[in-house]
Amino acid sequence: MNIKIRKSIKQDSKEVIRLIKELADFEKLDPPDSKAIRNLIKDMYSKNSPVKVIVAETDGRLIGYAFYFYTYSTFLAKKTLYLEDVYVSSDYRKSGVGKMFFKELMKAAKKSKCGRMEWHVLDWNVNAIRFYKNLAAEELKEWKYFRMSL
Amino acid sequence: MNIKIRKSIKQDSKEVIRLIKELADFEKLDPPDSKAIRNLIKDMYSKNSPVKVIVAETDGRLIGYAFYFYTYSTFLAKKTLYLEDVYVSSDYRKSGVGKMFFKELMKAAKKSKCGRMEWHVLDWNVNAIRFYKNLAAEELKEWKYFRMSL
Repeated sequence: MNIKIRKSIKQDSKEVIRLIKELADFEKLDPPDSKAIRNLIKDMYSKNSPVKVIVAETDGRLIGYAFYFYTYSTFLAKKTLYLEDVYVSSDYRKSGVGKMFFKELMKAAKKSKCGRMEWHVLDWNVNAIRFYKNLAAEELKEWKYFRMSL
Repeated sequence: MNIKIRKSIKQDSKEVIRLIKELADFEKLDPPDSKAIRNLIKDMYSKNSPVKVIVAETDGRLIGYAFYFYTYSTFLAKKTLYLEDVYVSSDYRKSGVGKMFFKELMKAAKKSKCGRMEWHVLDWNVNAIRFYKNLAAEELKEWKYFRMSL
């Protein structure tokens, strides 16, 4: 399989939205509604957008995406690459696509002089958790995660 | 006590660094080293900095700070205000300063059309956790937090 990771372009939007909906379905979370989809496309592909999207492509078809942006650590005084979503379609899992995404993300993080990469994963997603532990990522068990909806 | 929350300016840097070190000490984490402090000051007060700092002032003295930036939710297609640090000096706790910070942060989040505010807290920091629960913030227990150092 010839799989390529590349920056996403506006022409990908329909395919990226399809993958985002697949991820929402997999995570049993509400997918973006039609208004959110319009906004998402606008935000992803706007010039100087703070949100970055890369995609995995094979045979002209998109089979995965990663969505990230930069946050910041005050104690390190360095940027952090925060991985909001990483997703590979079920038929293409265990083909090394996840590793290819992480390689690309680490390259971007180093280029941007980040001190860390961070992300969250659902506790029942044991395959993903095993994958992350194999990458020598550390689980930050002592931190609780809070949200306030506005 | 006349406490005012305001945007931080470069002239605050020494005081803000003092508070950041107080927070690191309180959290039992490594404070920024001297190189990190120089970078932090540069990043905090640079034009168009993505990192925002607000401070609490009383009698010309800084008694707390909050450090935040904007992240993004793909499923909402909206920005999130992410609170990296919020700190009030021990002598001034239980004086409503935390609430004043959250009021200001919520104002900023709404102005920037955020869908959410998010942050992390150390699991032993029961006073902070109680405070957040009183604000009707929700703990996201099903998400595990991962980090990779670069």
